[in-house]
Amino acid sequence: MAITFYDLCGKDGERFSPFGWRTRMALAHKGLDYTLELVKFTEKDKLGFSGQKLVPVIRDGETVVADSFAIAEYLDRAYPDRPALFGSDEARGLAKAVNAFVDRTVQIHVGGLIVHDVFGHVDEACQGYFRESREARFGKTLEEVQVGREERVDTFRKALEPLRLVVKDQPFLCGDAPAYGDFPLFGTLQWARLTSGFPLVEAGDPVHAWFERMLDAYDGLGRAIPAAA
Amino acid sequence: MAITFYDLCGKDGERFSPFGWRTRMALAHKGLDYTLELVKFTEKDKLGFSGQKLVPVIRDGETVVADSFAIAEYLDRAYPDRPALFGSDEARGLAKAVNAFVDRTVQIHVGGLIVHDVFGHVDEACQGYFRESREARFGKTLEEVQVGREERVDTFRKALEPLRLVVKDQPFLCGDAPAYGDFPLFGTLQWARLTSGFPLVEAGDPVHAWFERMLDAYDGLGRAIPAAA
Repeated sequence: MAITFYDLCGKDGERFSPFGWRTRMALAHKGLDYTLELVKFTEKDKLGFSGQKLVPVIRDGETVVADSFAIAEYLDRAYPDRPALFGSDEARGLAKAVNAFVDRTVQIHVGGLIVHDVFGHVDEACQGYFRESREARFGKTLEEVQVGREERVDTFRKALEPLRLVVKDQPFLCGDAPAYGDFPLFGTLQWARLTSGFPLVEAGDPVHAWFERMLDAYDGLGRAIPAAA
Repeated sequence: MAITFYDLCGKDGERFSPFGWRTRMALAHKGLDYTLELVKFTEKDKLGFSGQKLVPVIRDGETVVADSFAIAEYLDRAYPDRPALFGSDEARGLAKAVNAFVDRTVQIHVGGLIVHDVFGHVDEACQGYFRESREARFGKTLEEVQVGREERVDTFRKALEPLRLVVKDQPFLCGDAPAYGDFPLFGTLQWARLTSGFPLVEAGDPVHAWFERMLDAYDGLGRAIPAAA
């Protein structure tokens, strides 16, 4: 079967979606090839076949799956002979909790720190849409959202503590090698790396060392894309 | 080998320690017998052999282990033929993250909602110690800490969202059966159930239904102890 992966398209074809990166890492982990279809913010009708408007989406033969976590569950079910993303019911359940923690806490903190930087990487045709939708969500201009981030970044760093306590003692959240439980946080930090020069995680933080290991994983898939200036 | 389990002793021998419950469930999960040693708040010197002052502690032959998570790791290593608390490196790492999330978020929220109720279950000889140490931690009297909890409980309920998103779709955080990843949250809610009548989790909340299933697990180990009035 041929997999098609629908990912977000930024300016000049850049791919920075934090949720897209979860799926990109998952496909690499399983060693699955795919055809890439890039979708701009204003082209969400291209995803109509999936019954919703958000990337990532995969189509695998007759099967369409949206939502990065559901995609991972599907890939483990459909390709059980490939390296496991979860490996057990316990790990799948707990990875879902970590996934939700990143969605509800980490991702939201980071959005409030870099959203205007992200704007600079949005395709020009989509910048009006991006500004309007994000300013409505934050209730202020993109420029205003980032004001005071040098102080607010501490709150974000403290919020990482449950994950930091794991990676200070072992290479990856999932043990000696990365697996799906590592990808949600990676997606968020890679989104920031690709769009913003703002120093989110301090150099001495165990999370920083973990992120460097994640950039090297899967033959340096994450590191192959240059960081934003 | 004979395991000795050192757990906190409240008024009339009540055992409500949230961390003690993590170990109690872990020992039940593995089907291990043990001798119980109860330690009051003011008897922490009884734990001197462990090099620290906090329950739970287990002694297993020559081995002494403190810290509920380290105890669980030890039990899986020492008793690999018994049912696994983690089951894989992935699950162990992710359970550690969930454990830390409960410690840093859930447990702290609940302390601020029920600490004066807990005081009512502390052995009389220890009430002075408990009041002084907790009032120093909170910076106010135990009575003051609970003021306004009817409003603040919403913040606690929102904080449960990453775990709620898992148990709304499956019986336990760890899948179809409970495992260690379920025990940190259980310990906190059981601590509240045994010391406080304050309604922490609403009846329609998937976390409520999960907690009821946890009370029934291991032959109703948790439910066998009556709730506080």
